Amino acid sequence: MDLKKYVTTVDDYPKPGVSFKDITTIMDNGEAYKYATDQIVEYAKGLDVDIIVGPEARGFIIGCPVAYALEIGFAPVRKPGKLPRETISVFYDLEYGQDELTIHKDAIKPGQRVLVVDDLLATGGTVGATVELIEKLGGVVAGCAFLIELSYLNGREKLTNENIKALITY
Amino acid sequence: MDLKKYVTTVDDYPKPGVSFKDITTIMDNGEAYKYATDQIVEYAKGLDVDIIVGPEARGFIIGCPVAYALEIGFAPVRKPGKLPRETISVFYDLEYGQDELTIHKDAIKPGQRVLVVDDLLATGGTVGATVELIEKLGGVVAGCAFLIELSYLNGREKLTNENIKALITY
Repeated sequence: MDLKKYVTTVDDYPKPGVSFKDITTIMDNGEAYKYATDQIVEYAKGLDVDIIVGPEARGFIIGCPVAYALEIGFAPVRKPGKLPRETISVFYDLEYGQDELTIHKDAIKPGQRVLVVDDLLATGGTVGATVELIEKLGGVVAGCAFLIELSYLNGREKLTNENIKALITY
Repeated sequence: MDLKKYVTTVDDYPKPGVSFKDITTIMDNGEAYKYATDQIVEYAKGLDVDIIVGPEARGFIIGCPVAYALEIGFAPVRKPGKLPRETISVFYDLEYGQDELTIHKDAIKPGQRVLVVDDLLATGGTVGATVELIEKLGGVVAGCAFLIELSYLNGREKLTNENIKALITY
């Protein structure tokens, strides 16, 4: 299946000059959604993964069915104030300023092998911060899987130690 | 499986006097997560559902694996500004003030049978707004499934026309 056909490009979103890759047109098609999920499940099977971690909110859309298919758990990475129990946090740079991501302190047990799943690898800021959160908790990042990679933004350079899988590349 | 054992009650979150039901301890346990998902899948099988709709962000965590298991699509309901293409929106009342939810205008086709999935049925504000969005697009709400129902908040009163399933009741 050519998944690229199901991605909708939205020009000038979220700001002028940006061509946004909209994955909701993969998600709302049962066949495309299952195909995309199964590709990541196949990748994960070779990595001996204990748990899936995904950043909100699109990381949940991709990561949760992968966890279900593998019969393993899912731990969410969220913006500050969204997780109810004790968290750790990491700050990361945006184009202007900084952002913060958090994870529950007990979400990953030391030594657990983790697959990071998100919709998009762009500059790698969100994923880099997610990897840092997992490693702070003693987890081992077994791999990072994305629906889409925007290769011209060089996100892989921030993830040189990681095993990376992207289903669609621009 | 007694799913209630996997829910963590967090006192005084998000504000003093509230006992928050934290479902992340269901999600990060592969067995409990699969069991919970499969219960909703079984419920959905009797309803002839075409697509799952879930409000961000915890609705994604529960609804997405249900969509995957049923081999159907998932359409997200999000806060304003989060969906990249043309949307419709609904306002609903909070304790103080109002909130707004949106859905892509093409997410549901007229006549499609929709299962609404979220983590929690509390006062029913979010779910009521989600039902309204689906019906505005010509969809038919076949049912509403929740991990948890807080029955003392009477959310069902806002959903008198709906077929409702909750896995855990407080």
